[in-house]
Amino acid sequence: MSLHIGATALCSRFLLGTAGYPSPETLRQAIAASGAQVLTLGLKRTLGTGQPDNGFVQIIRHAAQQQGARLLPNTAGCRTAHEAVQLALMARELFGTDWIKLEVVGDEQLLAPDPFELLSAARELCAQGFTVLPYCTDDLVLSQRLLDAGCAALMPWGAPIGSGQGLLNPFALRALRARFPRATLIVDAGLGAPSQAAQAMELGFDGVLLNSAVAQAADPVRMAAAFAAAIEAGRQAYAAGLIAPQDLAIPSTPVWDRAA
Amino acid sequence: MSLHIGATALCSRFLLGTAGYPSPETLRQAIAASGAQVLTLGLKRTLGTGQPDNGFVQIIRHAAQQQGARLLPNTAGCRTAHEAVQLALMARELFGTDWIKLEVVGDEQLLAPDPFELLSAARELCAQGFTVLPYCTDDLVLSQRLLDAGCAALMPWGAPIGSGQGLLNPFALRALRARFPRATLIVDAGLGAPSQAAQAMELGFDGVLLNSAVAQAADPVRMAAAFAAAIEAGRQAYAAGLIAPQDLAIPSTPVWDRAA
Amino acid sequence: MSLHIGATALCSRFLLGTAGYPSPETLRQAIAASGAQVLTLGLKRTLGTGQPDNGFVQIIRHAAQQQGARLLPNTAGCRTAHEAVQLALMARELFGTDWIKLEVVGDEQLLAPDPFELLSAARELCAQGFTVLPYCTDDLVLSQRLLDAGCAALMPWGAPIGSGQGLLNPFALRALRARFPRATLIVDAGLGAPSQAAQAMELGFDGVLLNSAVAQAADPVRMAAAFAAAIEAGRQAYAAGLIAPQDLAIPSTPVWDRAA
Amino acid sequence: MSLHIGATALCSRFLLGTAGYPSPETLRQAIAASGAQVLTLGLKRTLGTGQPDNGFVQIIRHAAQQQGARLLPNTAGCRTAHEAVQLALMARELFGTDWIKLEVVGDEQLLAPDPFELLSAARELCAQGFTVLPYCTDDLVLSQRLLDAGCAALMPWGAPIGSGQGLLNPFALRALRARFPRATLIVDAGLGAPSQAAQAMELGFDGVLLNSAVAQAADPVRMAAAFAAAIEAGRQAYAAGLIAPQDLAIPSTPVWDRAA
Repeated sequence: MSLHIGATALCSRFLLGTAGYPSPETLRQAIAASGAQVLTLGLKRTLGTGQPDNGFVQIIRHAAQQQGARLLPNTAGCRTAHEAVQLALMARELFGTDWIKLEVVGDEQLLAPDPFELLSAARELCAQGFTVLPYCTDDLVLSQRLLDAGCAALMPWGAPIGSGQGLLNPFALRALRARFPRATLIVDAGLGAPSQAAQAMELGFDGVLLNSAVAQAADPVRMAAAFAAAIEAGRQAYAAGLIAPQDLAIPSTPVWDRAA
Repeated sequence: MSLHIGATALCSRFLLGTAGYPSPETLRQAIAASGAQVLTLGLKRTLGTGQPDNGFVQIIRHAAQQQGARLLPNTAGCRTAHEAVQLALMARELFGTDWIKLEVVGDEQLLAPDPFELLSAARELCAQGFTVLPYCTDDLVLSQRLLDAGCAALMPWGAPIGSGQGLLNPFALRALRARFPRATLIVDAGLGAPSQAAQAMELGFDGVLLNSAVAQAADPVRMAAAFAAAIEAGRQAYAAGLIAPQDLAIPSTPVWDRAA
Repeated sequence: MSLHIGATALCSRFLLGTAGYPSPETLRQAIAASGAQVLTLGLKRTLGTGQPDNGFVQIIRHAAQQQGARLLPNTAGCRTAHEAVQLALMARELFGTDWIKLEVVGDEQLLAPDPFELLSAARELCAQGFTVLPYCTDDLVLSQRLLDAGCAALMPWGAPIGSGQGLLNPFALRALRARFPRATLIVDAGLGAPSQAAQAMELGFDGVLLNSAVAQAADPVRMAAAFAAAIEAGRQAYAAGLIAPQDLAIPSTPVWDRAA
Repeated sequence: MSLHIGATALCSRFLLGTAGYPSPETLRQAIAASGAQVLTLGLKRTLGTGQPDNGFVQIIRHAAQQQGARLLPNTAGCRTAHEAVQLALMARELFGTDWIKLEVVGDEQLLAPDPFELLSAARELCAQGFTVLPYCTDDLVLSQRLLDAGCAALMPWGAPIGSGQGLLNPFALRALRARFPRATLIVDAGLGAPSQAAQAMELGFDGVLLNSAVAQAADPVRMAAAFAAAIEAGRQAYAAGLIAPQDLAIPSTPVWDRAA
């Protein structure tokens, strides 16, 4: 079973962010433990004022190479479509990929996507040949328009970035899955625990992208492995056909000859 | 990391029930896929009126042998302490083990444990040298008394047997874990999805026992593997130190040089 | 305490929809029992093909007059900004009010608001002097833009219309309240029970609009009274300062002299 | 509609605790605002070491008289059946009532009921002619035995005393209501907000008992009124027949002539 993004098939359904790890070495090991084939990285931190980045990008590039992973530059920190498009163009140059995780944030405190600027940027970038993966809300109408614009996947949040709240609105996510049965849907942001990642996969999502829950864990490497296993477990469960919840108890051990 | 039941250390934290599979062959494969080292089986169905059991017990014995698993006979179907104790004594003879999953049910519709008969039976069986694993509620006081009686582990329900509702009261389960930090605690019954099993493990439980969610799945073998992975993932996550949920978003990608 | 919509102060915080009642007389009584000072009504059903409406509009007008209520025509059934604006203009003529509940739906199955068409229609109608109350999602960015456009209040859904699911995402609603402390915020749609209406008010919302939960109840008149009481209770509780939830029990009856 | 406790019919379904108010005058006013016809009070604080109680009991007696309320002494602070029975006997002398709220706590941190000591005390007190209202868990089997013992009502917790967590396990409470359709069932403890009290009533419970959520509110008098209204609203809603939650949206305003 593989995850499709555009024409690319990936064997891991876990997409990992690379920011905020305690050390470059921990990052390197966490990437390996995750088995992720898609690694996101912020562009803004790598540009700019001439500050060294401690070999950060080099590590990611190297790790990506080692496990056959692709880079997915993001536009974190952008507030307008214009700004995001500019950054995406730079990222394409810098990293040699037309994949872009499109973030355009409209609320500083919850880092909520701005549906208007996001759609505008998505249209522009799709037109320019990018493979666009927008970080979006669970809004059905926005989702439809992003797909119409040509986005390769949708990446709705489960909860605000870094909040670790899990899936705040499973009803909306289920509706999204039902409405777009053929689209690639990835839960991006807000997850804090592997059980929540498994839940997203059991709802039929195609993948999970996260960063803080691994990077900020007490033991990021071990946590990366835990998420990898949970995501795969959730996918297998979805494929294996979950039982429907019941209001009454049903004996698992029927007592057909009451011998005693 | 291993699961301790009495003096026994087991390397799998998944305990699997053996009832209600579509075929003996599916049961055999599901056991293998689960990697379970403890297999529960009802006694009543194997006794009695001379009806053949289609080699059911033989399959379980053989599977147990192959993967170094122990049998855990249960007293499903018992309504009184007396009845459960009698059945446990028979089980010890029949299966050559002093391990017993003690079920004494006091409500037919929800298959709810009867705290009074359960405690009485637990005391009697502990006195007779059994390794007693009671299927119980999340009641703190009952739990204390079962431990005082000498039970080797506690197995509170997550929800009614076979209901697939998941953890109906995580608050109570968390309280149980906090109150008995050194006891072996296993969530038994009510789980429907691997994400729920992972959640139990993330709360710090030592293991998960289930049956219907695997046996009644569309593909029991694949579901057994999914649960096995999720249980291990949840355990690893507990050990790796989960991040605390936050009310506000925290950028995973800090934008320290706003270059654009 | 009063609810402010534009320059108008209302003493009831309950806004009632008038569709789908079993009979005109039940509608009349339910309006009275609700004490609502705002009554919404669909425009499309009153226009058109010359079918009689069984005096429906006349009843609402009369009931409104009797309890000093205002009519709030809605644009239910509209799919585009253009369509909604046309309908609003007709409503202004027909009902002699510039109040409009602006619905522009972008998903047929969940009747989800279309954020793009909604904002466009809101801008147009505000420019034309309407008092605009948009039925919207809990999206922070959309909300900000609707307020910037001059909307008199925001009416985010609790859940899809008629679903009776209650508040699917209390986190998002709380965030909305926190971000716009001075805006008039009304939960519109999705509520099924008075407890859910009270919950919305306890979160600090200014009012609740509903229809199906009353109209489809077994006894709509009694249910209208129940919602009215619950909405007021929730508001009083918000004003009275709720206790914060605790993880541990706190004895309400301290035992300071252990006499026994 | 009235609440039946034994042979007594009460017109209010709100039972109020009297501990922990900021002042005697606030307590007096809160009682009046609640309209409660049952007032609980701890016995231990009124006995013992000769410390004055600031006229506390006198206020409660007087308030009770004024609104035709009954006193319901409780055995808060008791750890054994013996202790609780002794205290109940004293309460009967002191307050001239055979009503007793029976608390026997087995866990200090969560103030969890001890099912064993509780049942034992209930049997003894019923035998001695008391009208026994036990503070219990939502355990079905314990509930059955308490009713068999002759208890006049069951008072399961919603959550630990003073925690303000609301109904931690609505599934269990619903099961309790379904199993004992004719018993008087009152949710006691753990509620923090009027919406939660309404929810309990919507599940079909006969009444709600609380203390901290009123006494510890910023404005206890106003909060007492809020709870009173919410409890009544919840009861009316239960009687009026709530709509069933739906997975899909159902238009409240059907658009039968698409005129535009």
